[in-house]
Amino acid sequence: MNRGGSLRGSVVLLSGGMDSATCLAIASHDRPPVHALTVLYGQRHAREVRAARALARRYQVRSHVIVRLPIGPLLDSSLTRPSRSLPTAGPHRGRIPSTYVPARNTILLSIALGYAESHRLGAIYLGANAIDYSGYPDCRPEYFRAFERLTRLATRIGVERGERVRILAPLLSLSKADIVRRGDRLGVPWDLTWSCYAGGLRPCGRCDACRLRARGFRAARRPDPLFGFRSSRA
Amino acid sequence: MNRGGSLRGSVVLLSGGMDSATCLAIASHDRPPVHALTVLYGQRHAREVRAARALARRYQVRSHVIVRLPIGPLLDSSLTRPSRSLPTAGPHRGRIPSTYVPARNTILLSIALGYAESHRLGAIYLGANAIDYSGYPDCRPEYFRAFERLTRLATRIGVERGERVRILAPLLSLSKADIVRRGDRLGVPWDLTWSCYAGGLRPCGRCDACRLRARGFRAARRPDPLFGFRSSRA
Repeated sequence: MNRGGSLRGSVVLLSGGMDSATCLAIASHDRPPVHALTVLYGQRHAREVRAARALARRYQVRSHVIVRLPIGPLLDSSLTRPSRSLPTAGPHRGRIPSTYVPARNTILLSIALGYAESHRLGAIYLGANAIDYSGYPDCRPEYFRAFERLTRLATRIGVERGERVRILAPLLSLSKADIVRRGDRLGVPWDLTWSCYAGGLRPCGRCDACRLRARGFRAARRPDPLFGFRSSRA
Repeated sequence: MNRGGSLRGSVVLLSGGMDSATCLAIASHDRPPVHALTVLYGQRHAREVRAARALARRYQVRSHVIVRLPIGPLLDSSLTRPSRSLPTAGPHRGRIPSTYVPARNTILLSIALGYAESHRLGAIYLGANAIDYSGYPDCRPEYFRAFERLTRLATRIGVERGERVRILAPLLSLSKADIVRRGDRLGVPWDLTWSCYAGGLRPCGRCDACRLRARGFRAARRPDPLFGFRSSRA
């Protein structure tokens, strides 16, 4: 099965959170063989890496590569600068949250593009979501379409054969509850995922990521297995 | 002097070679204040970093940031994989050389974009050259135009104000001899620059980079000061 001409398979940008875990499940079904790429850009939640490793093992990916990219201090964001406080009031419609990391998805996609071209993979999956993070410029459909067009100009396969690497963000227009339902149908092991921004041993329950996760499970009317069989108190 | 609306100044992708040194001179003249960004992506010529540091000091840049991005082993190129031999026969017209690093300029530009947005800089300079490296997909004018368009979709300043970060490759259509002449007019300290791919204490004189450099100085009819006052024997 080769949907991309000479290109075959896919690479998933795997942070270890719910969204990228669901993408991993989708890619494993739709575009095998699957590689996983975890990029650490100095964000606080290094705990997610353990989640990413566990998910990659569970899905028996062809290869899981972890790249440390120490650019956090260069980028202006509360996610990468410990001196800035994390927002806890939930996302604001119409404003770009302080957790926005300048050019983050462009950086992640460009590294994934180099990897995809090197391994002749036809698609890059990422778990971007335009509902919960409607304020992020690089989580919008028009941005992903533009980056996909760029892949045809930026690569050897583009120049030599006119092919492009597909940029797939299958969760883009789903609510967190929809993601829980979609992941449930695919059997995503939620207990292996990690969402909290705060970096503690247990989810803090107060940061935006914890709130969005809790709201998703509540709306999907099922408990979050990360909390055992207790219902989430977040 | 603010040519980019609320954006001011520029960041130069500084490898330490002749081309990025010339860009640094141009940026210092045209779009101060200048920041310099050196990205180490696992290429062999770490010797260039010393050159980059010396150049940044000479030009008194606002800030010089060195980022280690250990993705070399992930990318398929003779420049980043020590097991592959370097080409020594000169560039081939119409073929993409093995020194092509998949998505290299996209990765460099995306990191520079995150930096530029964080520091509200209006332009990214890079020393790409379409004559000497005509085979590289990501050294073509249409590629740079596409990336510049992407900056308007990818960033906060793009969404909130419709601004874009300029991608400036002022050497794109210059021959190596033209670059030597241009740099001479600007007073570029060639003795601080480094070109050789091989990573020795002295330039190897045989790799593509050494040959292109030697050819440039020969065509510009002046000695390469990196070799003292002896003429280059490469």
